[in-house]
Amino acid sequence: MINVAIVGVSGFTGLELVQILLHHSKFRINYVSNSTGGQSLAQIHPELHGVLDIAVSKTSIDDIADKSQLVFLAVPHQTAMSIVPKLLQKGLKVVDLSADYRLDVATYEAAYCAHTDKENLQNATYGLPEFYSKDIANTSLVANPGCYPTATLLGLMPFVSYIKPDTPIFIDAKSGVSGAGKKLNQTTAFMNMQENSFAYSPLTHRHGYEIEYILKNFTKKSYDINFVPHLLPISRGMLCSIYLQLDNKIDATKILTDYYNSQKFVRIRTNPPTIKDTAGTNFCDIFVALKGQNLFINTSIDNLSRGASSQAVVNANIMCGLDEGLGV
Amino acid sequence: MINVAIVGVSGFTGLELVQILLHHSKFRINYVSNSTGGQSLAQIHPELHGVLDIAVSKTSIDDIADKSQLVFLAVPHQTAMSIVPKLLQKGLKVVDLSADYRLDVATYEAAYCAHTDKENLQNATYGLPEFYSKDIANTSLVANPGCYPTATLLGLMPFVSYIKPDTPIFIDAKSGVSGAGKKLNQTTAFMNMQENSFAYSPLTHRHGYEIEYILKNFTKKSYDINFVPHLLPISRGMLCSIYLQLDNKIDATKILTDYYNSQKFVRIRTNPPTIKDTAGTNFCDIFVALKGQNLFINTSIDNLSRGASSQAVVNANIMCGLDEGLGV
Amino acid sequence: MINVAIVGVSGFTGLELVQILLHHSKFRINYVSNSTGGQSLAQIHPELHGVLDIAVSKTSIDDIADKSQLVFLAVPHQTAMSIVPKLLQKGLKVVDLSADYRLDVATYEAAYCAHTDKENLQNATYGLPEFYSKDIANTSLVANPGCYPTATLLGLMPFVSYIKPDTPIFIDAKSGVSGAGKKLNQTTAFMNMQENSFAYSPLTHRHGYEIEYILKNFTKKSYDINFVPHLLPISRGMLCSIYLQLDNKIDATKILTDYYNSQKFVRIRTNPPTIKDTAGTNFCDIFVALKGQNLFINTSIDNLSRGASSQAVVNANIMCGLDEGLGV
Amino acid sequence: MINVAIVGVSGFTGLELVQILLHHSKFRINYVSNSTGGQSLAQIHPELHGVLDIAVSKTSIDDIADKSQLVFLAVPHQTAMSIVPKLLQKGLKVVDLSADYRLDVATYEAAYCAHTDKENLQNATYGLPEFYSKDIANTSLVANPGCYPTATLLGLMPFVSYIKPDTPIFIDAKSGVSGAGKKLNQTTAFMNMQENSFAYSPLTHRHGYEIEYILKNFTKKSYDINFVPHLLPISRGMLCSIYLQLDNKIDATKILTDYYNSQKFVRIRTNPPTIKDTAGTNFCDIFVALKGQNLFINTSIDNLSRGASSQAVVNANIMCGLDEGLGV
Repeated sequence: MINVAIVGVSGFTGLELVQILLHHSKFRINYVSNSTGGQSLAQIHPELHGVLDIAVSKTSIDDIADKSQLVFLAVPHQTAMSIVPKLLQKGLKVVDLSADYRLDVATYEAAYCAHTDKENLQNATYGLPEFYSKDIANTSLVANPGCYPTATLLGLMPFVSYIKPDTPIFIDAKSGVSGAGKKLNQTTAFMNMQENSFAYSPLTHRHGYEIEYILKNFTKKSYDINFVPHLLPISRGMLCSIYLQLDNKIDATKILTDYYNSQKFVRIRTNPPTIKDTAGTNFCDIFVALKGQNLFINTSIDNLSRGASSQAVVNANIMCGLDEGLGV
Repeated sequence: MINVAIVGVSGFTGLELVQILLHHSKFRINYVSNSTGGQSLAQIHPELHGVLDIAVSKTSIDDIADKSQLVFLAVPHQTAMSIVPKLLQKGLKVVDLSADYRLDVATYEAAYCAHTDKENLQNATYGLPEFYSKDIANTSLVANPGCYPTATLLGLMPFVSYIKPDTPIFIDAKSGVSGAGKKLNQTTAFMNMQENSFAYSPLTHRHGYEIEYILKNFTKKSYDINFVPHLLPISRGMLCSIYLQLDNKIDATKILTDYYNSQKFVRIRTNPPTIKDTAGTNFCDIFVALKGQNLFINTSIDNLSRGASSQAVVNANIMCGLDEGLGV
Repeated sequence: MINVAIVGVSGFTGLELVQILLHHSKFRINYVSNSTGGQSLAQIHPELHGVLDIAVSKTSIDDIADKSQLVFLAVPHQTAMSIVPKLLQKGLKVVDLSADYRLDVATYEAAYCAHTDKENLQNATYGLPEFYSKDIANTSLVANPGCYPTATLLGLMPFVSYIKPDTPIFIDAKSGVSGAGKKLNQTTAFMNMQENSFAYSPLTHRHGYEIEYILKNFTKKSYDINFVPHLLPISRGMLCSIYLQLDNKIDATKILTDYYNSQKFVRIRTNPPTIKDTAGTNFCDIFVALKGQNLFINTSIDNLSRGASSQAVVNANIMCGLDEGLGV
Repeated sequence: MINVAIVGVSGFTGLELVQILLHHSKFRINYVSNSTGGQSLAQIHPELHGVLDIAVSKTSIDDIADKSQLVFLAVPHQTAMSIVPKLLQKGLKVVDLSADYRLDVATYEAAYCAHTDKENLQNATYGLPEFYSKDIANTSLVANPGCYPTATLLGLMPFVSYIKPDTPIFIDAKSGVSGAGKKLNQTTAFMNMQENSFAYSPLTHRHGYEIEYILKNFTKKSYDINFVPHLLPISRGMLCSIYLQLDNKIDATKILTDYYNSQKFVRIRTNPPTIKDTAGTNFCDIFVALKGQNLFINTSIDNLSRGASSQAVVNANIMCGLDEGLGV
C-alpha cells in the first residue's frame, strides 16, 4: 500500500478524493488536513460517520512527509505554491489540484498573481493523461487541469488542425455549483441558484487563459479562444459546447473516433451527452455535429471527478506505475 | 371590456394566459377550451380553485365567435391552421402562439409539414412588437414568435449590420423545461432532468429556421445561423448566448442602448442577466461584451411570458388599440 | 392613495411586499429603507430594473413619518421593537412582520430575548384575519403571524374543540428555503440544499411557542404542541402535516367546510394540496383525512405570501378600511 | 465468483443493482433482462456506455437458470410471484425487491391483489438484516423490504416496548421521486415536482400495512400505525419523522445506542440526519428527541440503496455466507 495525504480535505474536491480513495486498492489515506485542524473528518463531512472518522490535522509539512509518499493538494491557488517546494524537497510526489503549476510564469501572472515558485513551475507536468501520460509517469509534480480546460481540450484537440486559419473558437461552458467552491456568497446560495442560470466572467475567465496556453504549448500554434462559462442549478457536472469554423469538409465523427481509439476514459457518442451520463465517473463523453463547415463539439464531464479528483487519482496512479484506471 | 377566448387552455402557455388576463383591465376571459372539454378549469389547474373555476369547453368555432372578439390559440402547430381560417371568417382577431403563421410556405414546409392555409399565411404579421408594432396594429392575425427566436432576435437585431461578411452566427440557447410542453416523455421526467442538462436537436432545431427566416425578411440579407438549444433543470426561463464576428471595432453597449432607446420591455444590462431577473415578466434583458472583434450577446427572457403568453397579450393590446403594456 | 413605507426592503419578504404593492390600487410605495442605505432598489433586487428603481434610504423615523401613513416592518426581531414605539408616537399605522409583538411578555422572553416595549406589546393585534379581523380593523399595530403558525393555526382551529383531552398534537412542517432568510450560511447554500431535506430545531423551534400561545389565547385552553419543522429544497412554499387524536367520531370535511364558509382565502380541498397550488397567492388550502379517531390535517401556504407579505397587505387593507383582498 | 441475474434491469433499482454489483468482489452480473429484451444495457442506461454494455434479454427462466445461481427481481408486484416458483424449482436463490412475499396472504390480498403463490409466501424471509439475519442465512427466498418500512421499522423497533398502550403512532415520511418508479405520469414530471411537495395516499398507503404487519409479526403485539407519505423534489433519499407517546420517561438516545450496538449499517446521530448524509449508502441514520413523554424519531436512508438495491445485495451476501457488507 502507498500512503497518501489529502491537504485541504474540507472542500468539495477534498471530500471527493476521500470517497474515491476509500475504495482504492493501492492507496491508503493516512493523513488529512486543512488550514485549522481540530475537527474530525465526520464533523466536517457528516456522510463519513462510521466510514472514515479520522482526525483532521492542521497542515504540517513534517507530518505529511512522515505519513505519506504522495500528496493531493486540494487547496486554493497561492496556497499550493507556498507548500509545493517543501513537499518536493521531502521527496514526495505531488498532485496539485490548484492552478499554480498549470501555466508558464507570464501567463500565470497575467491571470492570477505573482508566482513565488518559478523553478518548480518549469518542471511541472500538466495532468491531462490523454496527452501527457508519458511525462506524468516521470514527474514528481503534476498540475491537475482545471475543470473547464479538461472538458474543452478533450473536445478541441482532435480538431485543431482542421480549423480555418484566423477564425475564433467560441466555448459556451456550463458548470454545476460545486465548481464555485465552498466559500459562502449570495451567488451560490440556494435562493439565488434555484430556478436560475447565468453567464459569469464572460470572455475574461482565467480558464480561458489556461485553454489558450495549453493549446499553444501542445500544438505550437496560437488560437483565438473566446470562453464564456455559465452556472447551472445543479450540484455537479459540466457541459461544454464548442463552436468553430473548419477549413474544409471533414468526417468529424471518424476523426474523433480514430483520435481516441485507445483511450478508455473518452466515450464517443452518437447523441449529445447529458451531464448525468458522466456523473460520478472519470469519463469525458464527446459528440460532434456539422452544419456545412461549422463544427459543434459537445462534451460532458463531472466537474468534481474528471474535472478534479478522479483525474487527480488517475495522475497519481500513473506517477506510481499503477494502472491508470485503478480505483476510479 | 373586450371578451377573449383561450383555445388550448390545458397547457403551460394556456395557464399563463389565464393568469395574466385575470388582472387585465380591458380583456375578460369569456371562453376557454381544449380538445376534449368536460372538466372545470380548476380540475386541470388546481391553483385556479376559487380564482377562475369555469367550465372548459370542447373547442367550437361557433361558441368562440358567440363569446369573444379576440382569440388566443395555445394549440400545437397543424391544429392552429385548421382553426384560423374559420375564426378569421367570423371576423375575430387571432393571436396564434403556434408556429403555423410565422414563416413563408417554403420555409414552413421544410421545417414542419404541408401548410393548409397559405392564403392567411401571406397576411399574418410576426408578433415581435419591437420590430413590427405598426403591422400588428393593423392585422387580424398575429403569429406570436417562438421563445428562442424572441430571445435571439432581440439580441441580434441591433448588430446584424456590423457582422463580418460570410461569417457564422453561433447561438447557444438554454431553456426551462416548460418549453417542451406538457406531453409526457422520459426526457422531461423529474428523474431525468434533476441534476441534468443537455443539448438537443443541435444545428437542426426548427427555431433555427425561424431565426434565419425573420432575419432575412427584416434585413433583406441572409445570415448563417447555427443554433443549438439546451434544456436546463428549471421550470421556466431562457438564456441565449450569441457569438459572432464583427467587421470593425464598435461600441457595442452604445449601439445597443441607442437601438432600444424607446422600448420599455428591453433592458440593457451592465452585467450578464440571470434567468430569474426576467422571470414572470415581459422584459428581455440584454448584455454585450467584446474580445477584439468577437462579440458576445447575452439575453434573458421568461420563455412562458415574453417567449409566449405575455408577448401574446402585448400583441393583443396593440391589435385592439390599447397601451401595449396593459396588464402585463 | 395611501403612502406606505417598507422598512427592511433588502430581504425576501421586503421584495415580496414591493411586488405586491406595485399593483395595489390604494397603497403607493413612497419610502423604502434598510439598515445601511446607499443603493438603489434595483441594485439590491435586479428584477426591479425599469420597474421601481428608487433609492433605498437608511432607515429614519422622521423620513418614514414625512413620507408615509402606514409602515411595513420587514426587519428581524429586536430591531422591530426598537422602532415601533417611535412610529406609533408619530401616529403611523404599523404592520410588523417580525415576532416582536406576537406573544405576551413571558412567552416572548422565554422564546426570544428581553422585551423592551411591553406597553405596545399589550395593545398589539395578532394579524390572522380569519380570527382577528375586527381587532385588526381597530388597531394601529398588527403583529403579522409567523409562517408556520399561520399554516398550522388555520388547519387546527376548526378541530381544537374535538381533540381528545390530554393527548398531544404533532405538527410536521416543511418550508422552502426563503423561510431561513437571506443571511449566508452553509445550511442554505445550494450545495447543501440541492437533493436534500432535514428536520431542524425539533420540538424546540420558537414557532412552536407561538402556536401554543395563540391557541391558548384564542380558545382559553392549553394544548400539547409538538412541532418539528423541516427544510425542503425549494425556494418558497410550506406544507404542514398535523396529526392528532379525536374524542369522538366526526365528519371532518363538513366541520372544516362549515368553519371557513365565509372565508375567501381558505380553500377546502378533496385531495392533499401541493405546495405549488398556493404558490404566489394568499390562499391557505386545507385537506383532512381520518383513520378511526386519528385525524390528519394537511395545509399548504406560500411562506412568503400568506406566511408573510400578502398577509401583511391584507392586514393593512383591513386597518385602512379597504377590502381585505385588495391587490392581493 | 457467484453468477447473478438481474431481472427488471430497466428501472431505477435495476440500474442501482448493476452499479453496486459492478464493484462486488464475489458476485458477477451474468444475465440481465426486462420484459421486452432487444436493447443493450447502455441504450437503456447511457451512463453504462463503456462500463457494462451487455445485451438485455427478454426474461427467460431457463436462461436465468443456465447463467446464474442467484437472482435479483426488480420487477413490479404480481410479476414477481409469477416467476418466483419457477426460479425456486430450478434451485436458485432469489431476492425479490417487490412486495409479493413480504406479508401474509390476508394482509397481502387486502393491500394488493389475489396471491397466486401462497406456498412460497409462507416460507419467504423478510430481508431486514438487523432483525432477521439468521433466517436470511437459511432461506432461498428473501422478500426485500419496502423503502418506507425499512426507514420506519429501523427507527421504531427499539422503542415499541415503551409505547403508551392504545396510543397511535404517526409516521410522516418523505421520499425522493425515484420511489415512484420510472412509469411516466404527470405527478412525476419535472414541471410538477420542481418547487413542489405534497402528501399522497394519506393513511391508506400500502406500506402502512407492511409496517403494521411486520411490527406485529416481530413483536407479537398490534400497533396503531398512521402513515402519511410525501414526495420531495429530489431524485433519491428518504426521511421518516415518527411521532409517538411513551408510557414512561426514558433515556431515548441510550436505548437506541444500546439497541444497535453491534450493527454496522445503523448510525446513531446527535443531530437530525439529512437526506444527503446517507445518499448512495446502505446506512440508516437515526436521531431521537423528547418533549416530556412524546418521542420524535427521525431516520434517513437512501430509498434506492438501503430502501432497495444495497439492502438486496446485503441480503444476497448473507444468503451466500459472505460478509454482509461486501461490496456495499
